[in-house]
Amino acid sequence: MARTIFITGGARSGKSTFAEKRAREFGSSLGYLATAQTLDSEMDERVRRHRERRGAEWDTIEEPIHLSEALARCDGQYQAILVDCLTLWLSNLLLKYEDAAESCEERMHEDLQRLKSTLQGMVTPVILVSNEVGMGIVPDNTLARMFRDIAGTANQTMAAAADEVHVVISGLPLKLK
Amino acid sequence: MARTIFITGGARSGKSTFAEKRAREFGSSLGYLATAQTLDSEMDERVRRHRERRGAEWDTIEEPIHLSEALARCDGQYQAILVDCLTLWLSNLLLKYEDAAESCEERMHEDLQRLKSTLQGMVTPVILVSNEVGMGIVPDNTLARMFRDIAGTANQTMAAAADEVHVVISGLPLKLK
Amino acid sequence: MARTIFITGGARSGKSTFAEKRAREFGSSLGYLATAQTLDSEMDERVRRHRERRGAEWDTIEEPIHLSEALARCDGQYQAILVDCLTLWLSNLLLKYEDAAESCEERMHEDLQRLKSTLQGMVTPVILVSNEVGMGIVPDNTLARMFRDIAGTANQTMAAAADEVHVVISGLPLKLK
Repeated sequence: MARTIFITGGARSGKSTFAEKRAREFGSSLGYLATAQTLDSEMDERVRRHRERRGAEWDTIEEPIHLSEALARCDGQYQAILVDCLTLWLSNLLLKYEDAAESCEERMHEDLQRLKSTLQGMVTPVILVSNEVGMGIVPDNTLARMFRDIAGTANQTMAAAADEVHVVISGLPLKLK
Repeated sequence: MARTIFITGGARSGKSTFAEKRAREFGSSLGYLATAQTLDSEMDERVRRHRERRGAEWDTIEEPIHLSEALARCDGQYQAILVDCLTLWLSNLLLKYEDAAESCEERMHEDLQRLKSTLQGMVTPVILVSNEVGMGIVPDNTLARMFRDIAGTANQTMAAAADEVHVVISGLPLKLK
Repeated sequence: MARTIFITGGARSGKSTFAEKRAREFGSSLGYLATAQTLDSEMDERVRRHRERRGAEWDTIEEPIHLSEALARCDGQYQAILVDCLTLWLSNLLLKYEDAAESCEERMHEDLQRLKSTLQGMVTPVILVSNEVGMGIVPDNTLARMFRDIAGTANQTMAAAADEVHVVISGLPLKLK
């Protein structure tokens, strides 16, 4: 089984930069699996900046929903694959499932379990970036609370399955595992 | 004086699971002091899940307001007592006191000092779980800002008084003291 | 070049108290550079409490906007200067620049680069306090998201330039660098 590295941190904490650095230690043939949905110009701009920073040695694969399938397709083709990020993927799933409010949480947990299984079967090392979203005041909004819970559970699940875990604060990584 | 262990972390960070594990190291006769008020079905569901996970070896005592008195009553009856959680208790106090807005903050600080004194006189070790709520954007709402400040001060006070302090991130504990 | 110490943490995490303690290790002639704008009574009250806690050995300089200039003026006059805090300064800049929405972000980044240069030329050690604001749910508000991004970037920039970095959680410092 290939190495899985889980990297979490707050917004603009430097987690993506650290993840890219960590990925480059595996070689120069690198896959970047972007889960961002560029639905508006703000997001477009973020994605553009990230891509510029990474430079040409990365293949970018965009997949907002079918993350496990995209990972399986990329497996064996690179020296490392960076997924950026888990939390955006979960928010895309939430948008997709929220009309079916009752089964939404359950379906997200199923997708999460599938991702865990996929990661465990990978040949290529995966660096998984995630967001810390549970250290602010409890949100008023029910959906936001549910999302916060799922994102927290997802971080626990992935960190437990990973071989190496870091939290990045003010650009500085702190190794948790 | 018995050992006090303070455990903080964000929402769904795995802090309760870690606290339960830490409590079990003291023995199998365990008290679980729940501060949650089950005012709605969402909260009912959370409490039910937590109880299921813990299993039968725990006595559950529900006390949303009179935490010091409940701790004093339980003292000497278990090998360890887990309080889950400090932040919910503070939000229950806020709901109780907020009509008297002027003295609200002061009364909460008094209750906090009483809790500190109670903990210092305990024979049974106490594992105190708390929430990190101050690492998001400053809330618009005045009451939310006041709550955030009190919750932060409470964490400082309890961590200073504790013998052992951990922060749990993505399910992984980091020892701070 | 004098030592720069960067200290971050959530609201009421004890970061100012730790920063003051760290500053006192440099001597007893100390400058306190406060960036708070006391626009309302809530803020007045906070500033008053902080001042009371510090005591008489500190000179307080209030500068909500022209932080680099104020630092340059204070340089060489104290054994250490504490800046409290970077995030409030950024929010003051945001209020000042937001009418010119298009150039707002750019101007804040320029001010940040100027601060970095000023710090690098200082003779007196500077202890820079900052706030972690990016670990909650993504704010609905566009301006809040932009602010969160700038505050995160500022923390990365300053932590990278600093000789020593700490995050304070529940009153307990954790050294990151």
